[in-house]
Amino acid sequence: MQQAYFRYYPQLKPNLTAVSDLIGDRLTVRYAQLEPALQQMAQQGGKFLRPAFLLLFAGLHEHPVTEQQLKAAASIEILHMATLIHDDIIDDAPKRRGHASLQAAFGKDVAVYAGDYLFTVFFDLITETVANTRFLTVNARIMKRILNGELGQMGDRFKLDQSLLGYLRNVNGKTAALFSLAAEEGAFLGGATQKEIQLAKRIGQNIGIAFQILDDILDYTGHHLNKPILKDLATGVYSLPLLLVLPTHQAELTPYLTQQAQMTPADIKAVQQIVKQAGGVQAAQTLAAKFTAKAEAELAQLPPSASRRALEKIIEQLLKRTR
Amino acid sequence: MQQAYFRYYPQLKPNLTAVSDLIGDRLTVRYAQLEPALQQMAQQGGKFLRPAFLLLFAGLHEHPVTEQQLKAAASIEILHMATLIHDDIIDDAPKRRGHASLQAAFGKDVAVYAGDYLFTVFFDLITETVANTRFLTVNARIMKRILNGELGQMGDRFKLDQSLLGYLRNVNGKTAALFSLAAEEGAFLGGATQKEIQLAKRIGQNIGIAFQILDDILDYTGHHLNKPILKDLATGVYSLPLLLVLPTHQAELTPYLTQQAQMTPADIKAVQQIVKQAGGVQAAQTLAAKFTAKAEAELAQLPPSASRRALEKIIEQLLKRTR
Repeated sequence: MQQAYFRYYPQLKPNLTAVSDLIGDRLTVRYAQLEPALQQMAQQGGKFLRPAFLLLFAGLHEHPVTEQQLKAAASIEILHMATLIHDDIIDDAPKRRGHASLQAAFGKDVAVYAGDYLFTVFFDLITETVANTRFLTVNARIMKRILNGELGQMGDRFKLDQSLLGYLRNVNGKTAALFSLAAEEGAFLGGATQKEIQLAKRIGQNIGIAFQILDDILDYTGHHLNKPILKDLATGVYSLPLLLVLPTHQAELTPYLTQQAQMTPADIKAVQQIVKQAGGVQAAQTLAAKFTAKAEAELAQLPPSASRRALEKIIEQLLKRTR
Repeated sequence: MQQAYFRYYPQLKPNLTAVSDLIGDRLTVRYAQLEPALQQMAQQGGKFLRPAFLLLFAGLHEHPVTEQQLKAAASIEILHMATLIHDDIIDDAPKRRGHASLQAAFGKDVAVYAGDYLFTVFFDLITETVANTRFLTVNARIMKRILNGELGQMGDRFKLDQSLLGYLRNVNGKTAALFSLAAEEGAFLGGATQKEIQLAKRIGQNIGIAFQILDDILDYTGHHLNKPILKDLATGVYSLPLLLVLPTHQAELTPYLTQQAQMTPADIKAVQQIVKQAGGVQAAQTLAAKFTAKAEAELAQLPPSASRRALEKIIEQLLKRTR
C-alpha cells in the first residue's frame, strides 16, 4: 500500500493491513508464477482508497471493526484489481503499479483468465459477507454498472457529438459506482441508519465523479506520473476538458480529431493547447468542485466522528487538487 | 439452437426455447452493435447442452418445470457463453458458432468486456434463483473451478512430464465442472432427494469428462468440423491421446515436441501419426468408455422417467462416438 494516503486516515492503518492480508490469503491460483505476480500487484503500489472508504463509512458510529467489514473491504479492492487487469489488456499497458502489467509479463491469455479469476474471488467474498442482505444483489449489479460504463465509453470513441450527460453516465459506471458501493456498504455494515446509508451512497458517488474528473484534468495539465500524456485522446476517448469546449470550438478541433488514431504527437499537443486556451481545464475544475462541494455538504449531515473528519480531509484535498 | 440435439429430448424443446428467450431478454448492453452480436451468438448455433442437462435432471420426478429452473438453465448457458468469448480472445479464434467471433468482429477490447458482462448477467440470474440456498456458493465457486482448469492447462503447456492426474484435474475444471453443476442444480431444483442430487452431480461430472476426452480424440481422428486440426498441439496443450503414449514413446516424440511453437504442419502430422500408431486414440477411447459406463451405472440408480430415458440415449450416443 502507498503510505502517503495514510496521513488522512492513520487510524485505519492496522485495519487496511488486515484487508491486505485477507486479499493475500485469497490469491491462490493453479498456475506457477501467476500467484506471486497477483500477490505483488495486491501488496505493492495500491492506494487501497476503496477499502479505506468502506472502512471509514463503517466507522461512522465508532463501533469496533468487524471481520465482515474487512472481508467486504477486501472484496471491493479485488473487484477493482480485476478491472485493472482487464483494462491493461485493452490498453496494452506495459506497467501497472510500478511493475510489469500481468499482460506484459504473462501474455493476454493468462491476463484474461487472471482478471476472470479475481472476479470469482470477489463473488466468493460477497457470498461470505452479504449473502443474506440486499447487498448481494447490489454487488452482483455493480460489476455490470462498471462494464456498462466501460462499454459506453468504448461505444462513444471518436464521436464528435458526445453529450456531457453521456460522459457523466459512463464515468458514473466506470469509476463512481465502486466508490458509491464502498461508502454505502460500509455505512450499512457499520450499523448506520437508512438515511445515513443513502447519504453515504451519494457521497461516494459524488467523490467518485470528482475523482475521475480530476484524472481527466491531469491528462491536460500533464501532471500524470504513470500514464502517457493524452493517451485517452489518441484512442478516441474524449475526456471532460475536451468535451466541454468541443461544441464551441468545432472549427479548430475537428481537423485534428477527424484523423482519429492517425493523430501525430504534434497534433495531440495542438489539441491540448486549444483545449487549455479555450478554458476546458478551468470548466472541468468548476464542475469537479461542484461534485466535491455536494459531497462536503452531504458529509456535514452525518454524525461527527473520527471517520467523518478523515473523509472531510480527503474531500478537502480533492478540492485543492481541482483548483 | 442446433436442432439435431432435440432428437434426444424432444419434450424439452418448448422449455429450451423459453430459456433461449430468457437469455435474449438479459443481453441488453450499452454498446450499439455489441448487443445484436451477443443475441446472435445466444440464439444461433448453440447446442444448449448444459441447459438441457439441467432441465432433464430437474425432470427426474416429473414435476412441472418452474421459472426458477428456466432461469438457472439460462444462467449456466450464459456462463458457458462468457467462457467461450474469453477463450476466443485467447485462441485468436476468427469464428464462433458459424459467425465471426466477438473478438474478430469488435476487437479484443470489446470482447474482454463482453465476456465480463456476461459474467455479471450470470451472477444476476443466480442471485435471483438460488440466493437462499447452498447453490449460491456452489455457483460462485464454479467459475473459479473453470478458471483453475484453464489456468492449470496453460501452466502445463509444452511440458513433457504431464501426469494423467493433472490432465483429469484440468479437464474436470474446464469442462466437467459445468456439466456437473447443471446436473446437480437441476436435480436440486426438481425436488430430488439428497442421494439423487449427489448421483446427479457425479453423472454430470463423468459425462463432462467423457465429453472432453471425445473432443480430444476428434483432434486426432480429424473429424472436427469447426476447429483447425491439432491446434491444441501447436499451442502446447497436449491432449489425452498424446499424453497416454508420451511416457512410452519419448524417443520418437521428443524431437518434435521440443520445437514447441516452431513445429511445422509436417511435424504436427508426424506427431499425429506416431500417436495413432502407438495406440493413443484407442487408449483414450477406452478411458472415455470407462467414464460413460460409470455415468450409465449411476443413472440406473435414479428413478425411471422420460428424463432418465433421454439421458440414457445421450450417454449411449456418447459411447458410440468414443468407439
